[in-house]
Amino acid sequence: MSVTAAAGFRAVGTTAGLKPSGKPDVAVVVNDGPKHEAAAVFTTNRVAAAPVLWSRQAVTDGRAYAVVLNSGGANAATGQQGFRDAHRTAEHAAAALGCSSGDVLVCSTGLIGEPLDMERLLPGVDTAVQGLGTEGGPAAAEAIMTTDTRAKQSRVDGTGYTVGGMAKGAGMLAPGMATMLAVVTTDADLPASALQLALDRAVAATFNRADSDGCMSTNDTVILLASGASGVAPDPDEFGAAVTRVCADLARQMVGDAEGAEHDIAVRVVNAETEEAAEAVARAVARSNLFKTAVFGQDPNWGRVISAVGTVPEYVAAFDATALDVSFNGVQVCRASGVGEDRSLVDLSAREVRVEIDLHAGDAEATIWTNDLTHDYVHENSAYST
Amino acid sequence: MSVTAAAGFRAVGTTAGLKPSGKPDVAVVVNDGPKHEAAAVFTTNRVAAAPVLWSRQAVTDGRAYAVVLNSGGANAATGQQGFRDAHRTAEHAAAALGCSSGDVLVCSTGLIGEPLDMERLLPGVDTAVQGLGTEGGPAAAEAIMTTDTRAKQSRVDGTGYTVGGMAKGAGMLAPGMATMLAVVTTDADLPASALQLALDRAVAATFNRADSDGCMSTNDTVILLASGASGVAPDPDEFGAAVTRVCADLARQMVGDAEGAEHDIAVRVVNAETEEAAEAVARAVARSNLFKTAVFGQDPNWGRVISAVGTVPEYVAAFDATALDVSFNGVQVCRASGVGEDRSLVDLSAREVRVEIDLHAGDAEATIWTNDLTHDYVHENSAYST
Repeated sequence: MSVTAAAGFRAVGTTAGLKPSGKPDVAVVVNDGPKHEAAAVFTTNRVAAAPVLWSRQAVTDGRAYAVVLNSGGANAATGQQGFRDAHRTAEHAAAALGCSSGDVLVCSTGLIGEPLDMERLLPGVDTAVQGLGTEGGPAAAEAIMTTDTRAKQSRVDGTGYTVGGMAKGAGMLAPGMATMLAVVTTDADLPASALQLALDRAVAATFNRADSDGCMSTNDTVILLASGASGVAPDPDEFGAAVTRVCADLARQMVGDAEGAEHDIAVRVVNAETEEAAEAVARAVARSNLFKTAVFGQDPNWGRVISAVGTVPEYVAAFDATALDVSFNGVQVCRASGVGEDRSLVDLSAREVRVEIDLHAGDAEATIWTNDLTHDYVHENSAYST
Repeated sequence: MSVTAAAGFRAVGTTAGLKPSGKPDVAVVVNDGPKHEAAAVFTTNRVAAAPVLWSRQAVTDGRAYAVVLNSGGANAATGQQGFRDAHRTAEHAAAALGCSSGDVLVCSTGLIGEPLDMERLLPGVDTAVQGLGTEGGPAAAEAIMTTDTRAKQSRVDGTGYTVGGMAKGAGMLAPGMATMLAVVTTDADLPASALQLALDRAVAATFNRADSDGCMSTNDTVILLASGASGVAPDPDEFGAAVTRVCADLARQMVGDAEGAEHDIAVRVVNAETEEAAEAVARAVARSNLFKTAVFGQDPNWGRVISAVGTVPEYVAAFDATALDVSFNGVQVCRASGVGEDRSLVDLSAREVRVEIDLHAGDAEATIWTNDLTHDYVHENSAYST
């Protein structure tokens, strides 16, 4: 499991004291090589956090030795001081690790608008570096949690190589990724360009289709590191599929741990003209607060589904608005945009809900994962600053 | 007040028995002329309800004698039968009123996916027509209520003429208008083309900037009828301003009555490059569930505001993401995208909340009205089908 599943990686999670709770809050992942190829995808939010600005620049050469991650502070909306703090974190870790600061990526998560507590973070990084080990993946996954209730890890074995990963994220999940950090590692021997291609495709099909509450974070970062330690240069398609499986697994775990949610909802659109059209329609439904509250109430309210479908413009998705079918958990409650099977046949008591919308306009499909809108979501996000 | 404020109009509200509650559910507004000019704006939802399909067609000639409105059933997602029912309603009313069915507009609101109870509606229309009067506006406004807690009416007096209106809408308020029906009447003497121009501008600046929960309805309709009974042909700009004031008043009343809301929030974006950019940024904030829950919790969470601002692409709104100012009720808690005045200075206990975002990118502005996201919103929309 996790970021130490693949050969050539060490990791650690430790406690620097950034969180009032005293829980672990600093993780380091180190690539011991022999190769140090790296790729990354960042939030498209224009109000990007300082660590995003730093790491985006640092990874442009396709190389990284280490990633330093902290919870207990997002270092977002912190101005010039925030960027200096991110840079200083990278320099401090680089000195301890014996590499260049330009090869250290930095990720932060926590409250926005407060400076990082560098007096605690830097000694924490020292402690972390001393504790690095090949079994450190689970501790690292735990140290990046914020409102997560469970650490999120995954592993897929390819032909002679391994892909492993960890992630955090439990809300504010949206396109252009969720409020999420993820580090994926592999011992495959591939250049940074191949990693970036695989990561871009994987993120588009997984994290970018987890849309818990429509809100995009300032800190989202997904990093893929390759050590080459297996000596295996895999087929790009097979490798891409393995990375996608790890990302899909992590994304599914995030939706399953979303703040206050009682249902994980797969909104699948089938028979669309294009995959983009299917995704746009699925996202429109996944973003409808009326649909999300209906699922919370275990109400297979197909009227709210087709109302949301109808908001997607013709130029985005071609379909006949009088020919829509909608099913909840396999029961087709809406046929040809009208009443279908008896809605009392639908049981929405289980956590996982599957909604399928047939556009009858082609043969493409896409699925967006979302959550219901619950009292606990409102409570958690109104009672606490995040 | 209301649709009978202007000379030349009669209205009525009555009970046909469409609502389980036994409350009034049918309204009729009649234009007694001498002119019968009409304009309308409809939902852009592609899953448009049958009465929208009927009325959109019927108003194309710029003439209308009457509007029949019912609550207790949306006649949406009802297929061919739904269209026949809308047509039959218009024919029935036309026979009773002595006009052509093509001059009768029809509006419906209530549950989606159930056929109208024509056995009750048509006798209700007969009863209504017999009760028409020049003092019937308030009763008509009451008969179109669904989850509204208050009837919504408005009146503005121009130079020698009057504009009056009524509306319903209490949730599912969104762009392309809210789940709302509105009828605005005037005794000004203007042709349909002038009415349509005034109405288009008024709707864009008022109803389309009320975005309670981001959800667009299948039935939204705003109708403007002109009797010419004042004999006054007003200046188009003055007339447009009067129509906009009536629509703004009705839109504000809808936001103030939104389902489960505890706060009415004006999200004002200033110093944008264009009005469209200001509107896009304001809407992104108004649609953020994290922002809306923060306001419910009386938390002036500027981090969630700038996170939402940052999701608007550069090609939609030009601004420097490090130069954003945000104030809550006049307290500038965020300056230059960082910490500003002490957030404890902000008092969000009153129902009305004013959030202002300064983009420092031009001199255009726009305001979107929205509501907070509350336990009651979740409750009302999860416990009941609508």
